[in-house]
Amino acid sequence: MNSKPEAVGTQSPKVSADRLWARHMHLAEYGRLESGGVNRPAFSPEDAQARCQLIRWATAIGLEPSLDAIGNLFLRKKGSRAGLAPVYTGSHLDTQPTGGKFDGIYGVLAGLEVLQSLHESGLRTARDIVLVVWSNEEGSRFAPTTMGSSVYVKKLALSEATQSCDADGHRLAQVLPAFLAAHGDVPVADITDIPYAYLEAHIEQGPVLEKAGLPLGVVTGIQGLRWFEVVVTGQEAHAGTTPLDARADALQVAVGLAKTLMDDFKAAGPEVRFTIGRWQAWPGSPNTVAGRVVFSIDLRHPDSAALEVFASAIEAHCAAANGVCTVALSALSASPSVAFSAPLQTLVESAAARWGAPCMKLISGATHDAKWLNGITQTAMLFAPCERGISHNPRESAKAEDLALVAQVLAETLVCLAQRP
Amino acid sequence: MNSKPEAVGTQSPKVSADRLWARHMHLAEYGRLESGGVNRPAFSPEDAQARCQLIRWATAIGLEPSLDAIGNLFLRKKGSRAGLAPVYTGSHLDTQPTGGKFDGIYGVLAGLEVLQSLHESGLRTARDIVLVVWSNEEGSRFAPTTMGSSVYVKKLALSEATQSCDADGHRLAQVLPAFLAAHGDVPVADITDIPYAYLEAHIEQGPVLEKAGLPLGVVTGIQGLRWFEVVVTGQEAHAGTTPLDARADALQVAVGLAKTLMDDFKAAGPEVRFTIGRWQAWPGSPNTVAGRVVFSIDLRHPDSAALEVFASAIEAHCAAANGVCTVALSALSASPSVAFSAPLQTLVESAAARWGAPCMKLISGATHDAKWLNGITQTAMLFAPCERGISHNPRESAKAEDLALVAQVLAETLVCLAQRP
Repeated sequence: MNSKPEAVGTQSPKVSADRLWARHMHLAEYGRLESGGVNRPAFSPEDAQARCQLIRWATAIGLEPSLDAIGNLFLRKKGSRAGLAPVYTGSHLDTQPTGGKFDGIYGVLAGLEVLQSLHESGLRTARDIVLVVWSNEEGSRFAPTTMGSSVYVKKLALSEATQSCDADGHRLAQVLPAFLAAHGDVPVADITDIPYAYLEAHIEQGPVLEKAGLPLGVVTGIQGLRWFEVVVTGQEAHAGTTPLDARADALQVAVGLAKTLMDDFKAAGPEVRFTIGRWQAWPGSPNTVAGRVVFSIDLRHPDSAALEVFASAIEAHCAAANGVCTVALSALSASPSVAFSAPLQTLVESAAARWGAPCMKLISGATHDAKWLNGITQTAMLFAPCERGISHNPRESAKAEDLALVAQVLAETLVCLAQRP
Repeated sequence: MNSKPEAVGTQSPKVSADRLWARHMHLAEYGRLESGGVNRPAFSPEDAQARCQLIRWATAIGLEPSLDAIGNLFLRKKGSRAGLAPVYTGSHLDTQPTGGKFDGIYGVLAGLEVLQSLHESGLRTARDIVLVVWSNEEGSRFAPTTMGSSVYVKKLALSEATQSCDADGHRLAQVLPAFLAAHGDVPVADITDIPYAYLEAHIEQGPVLEKAGLPLGVVTGIQGLRWFEVVVTGQEAHAGTTPLDARADALQVAVGLAKTLMDDFKAAGPEVRFTIGRWQAWPGSPNTVAGRVVFSIDLRHPDSAALEVFASAIEAHCAAANGVCTVALSALSASPSVAFSAPLQTLVESAAARWGAPCMKLISGATHDAKWLNGITQTAMLFAPCERGISHNPRESAKAEDLALVAQVLAETLVCLAQRP
C-alpha cells in the first residue's frame, strides 16, 4: 500500500513538484495579504505584475507571448507541424478580494510546468501548445465573472465588457489600456485560433476528493446554476406593543419560508446545492418588528431539467408564503449545466492510469473559464484536492504532491492531444 | 349609538381639542422632516427650541418654569394650600431620528392643555400641579433611554449620565451647559419634591385600542423585558462545491432555531411578545455558505416570573441547537415588569366614566418615564389610540377627538388628586 505507483508507458516527461510549489509561493507575493492570502483584482497593477513574472518564466523557455484586446494572455510553444490547431491549457491569475494562492493560479502554473518539462526534455509536439491566462475570471472587481474567456468565445462583446465599472466608478475601458501597456512589449493582436482542445487544471474548491482520499478528479461538467432574490415585505411595528397576531413580521415569514425550502432541498438528493448566503433585515433594530427581509437563493444541479423542476418548487413555496406579508421572487440569472467531452474524460483517465494516479469523476460546483471553451472545442478539467475544501479564502491550501501529480496527468493528456496529426 | 355621551358630575373644565391638536402641529416644526415626521434628538438645539415654545405657552398662563441639572423641565401651577406634595404630569419632547409628532409630545401637551383649561376656568386646586418634561426619554442620541426620569428618581447618577457619548463623540457633559442655557433665564435648581402622584398620558404605540374601538386605555403596568443576542458560528464554504451534508451552515442553523423559537412563542399565549428584529449574516455573499449569523431577541411579558420561565426556554433551545455549528446566547439586559397603582387605575376609570369615555385596561409594551416615577410615588398612565399602532415612524398619527378625550380624563383625574387634602 505504501509503495509509490510506477509510471507505465508514459509519453510525458516528469514535472517538478518543488518548482511548481515554489512558483505558487512566488506569485502569491503580488497582492499579498497580511493573512497570507492574496488580493489581486483583475486589471490591477498587481495583476499585471504577476503576469510579467509569468512572462519572464515563459520567455526563458522559449514561449511566445501575445495579448488580445480584453487582456487574455497567450504563451505559445511552437509545435513541429504547421497548420494544425493548437492545444490550449490555462486558467486565471486574478483573485477574490480575500483570496488564496491556488484558485486559478494552479491551472496557469501547472500548464507552465508542463511546458517547462517539455522544454527541458527536448520533446517537441506536433501541435502548438498554448498556455492561456484568461482575464478577470473572478468578476469581483468588474462584472461579469469569466469575462476574458466569454469575450474570447464571442459570447460577450468587447464593447459591452469594457463598459463595466468597479466600485470606485472606474470604467474598464479607462483602465484597460494601461493594463495592456504594463505587459511591456508583448504584442496585442486578435487571436483567430480555434483550439483543437482545451484542458484546465484547478483546485476542487470542495471537500469531495479529500474525503475520498483521491489526488485527482476528472470533471464531467459544470452544474447548472439559478440565482434568485426573495423580498418579504411586512410592516414595521413596536416589538413591545404589537401582539404577535397583529404583526406583519417580515422576518418571521422569511424564516418560515427559508425553513421550508431548506427542509425540502435537504431531502432532494445529494446532487442538489441549495444555499441562502445573503440575508438582510430592515430596519435592523432589536425592538422593532422587521418590515422587510431580502434573501438570496443559489441553486445548482448537474441536470438542467432537474434544476428547472427545483426552480418551479421554489416559485410555488414563495407563492404559498404570501399572506400577512407579501413575498416576491425574482430570478436573477440562469446558467444551464455543461457536460465536458466524454472522449476527453476517458483520455484523462487513461493518462492518470499510466502515471498511477487514482481518480474519480465528479462535477464542478463552481463555474470556470472551461465552461465557455466547451462551447467551441473539446474541453476537459482536472481537479486537485484542496485542504478541507476551503477556497475563496486566505486559508486556501493544497498538497504539493497532489498538485504535481495532477500537473503530470495534465502533461500526459496534453502531449497525447498535441501529438495527434 | 351615535349620540355623544354627556359628562355627568365632572370636576374638571373642558379642554380644547383644536388647541391641543394645533400645538402638536406647531411643535412638529422643531426638527421637521421632509417626510412629515420629526427628528428632534435629546439635548439638541431643536429640543431646546421646542421647550422654549412650551415655556412661552406655559408662562402665558402663569406657570413657573425651572430646570434641574439633567435638564428636566418643570412648569408649576401653584395650588391654594402650601405644604402639600404636588401632583406631577408630563412626558417628553425628544424624538427618535425618524420619529413622529405624538410619541411623548402628547403627554406634555395634554398636561399643558389641562393646566390651560384650569387657568381659563379660574379653578385653583389645593395642591400644586407640575407639568414635567423629562430629558432624553428616547435615548437614541445619548444612552440610556428614560435618562432624565431615572436621574430624577436617583436610579442613575448625574455624573454617570453625563459621561454618555453620542455617535459623533460628543460627551453629554460638554453639551449639557449650552442646552440648559438655551432655555433663557429659566433657573436651574435641585427639585426636592416627592410628588403626591404622577400621571402620564401617551399614545398607545400599538393597535389594541384601535382594534377594540376604544378611545382610552387605563395602563396596568409595563411589561418585563429581556434582551438577548444569539451568535451562530459555522464555516464559510463555496455554495457550488460543498455538498449540503458537508456544511456547517450558520444561516441554516439560525433559521431552524429561529423557527423553533417563533413556533414556541406563538403558542405561549396572547400576553407574550417575542421579536427577532435584527438579523445579520456573514460574509453575505449569495454563493458563499454563511459562516456567522447574529440575531437579536426581544422578549416581553407582564409577569416577571413568566418572563424568566420563557428566558429559560430560550436558553434550552439555543443549547439544543449546538451541533455542526456553535450557538452562543448572551443576555444583554433585563428589566422586570412594573405594576401601576391599582387605586389610581380605579380613579382614572371613574374619571373616564364621568366624561363618558369608554375604556379598557391594558399593559404597556413600551417603556416610559412612568416606570421610574412608579418607584417613588403612586403612578398611572393613560393611553390614547394611535393610527394602525404605528409609532417611532414619521407616519405616526392619532385622532384629535381621541387625544382631547384622553386629555379630558387626565384633567378630571388630576383635579381629583390635586384637590385631596
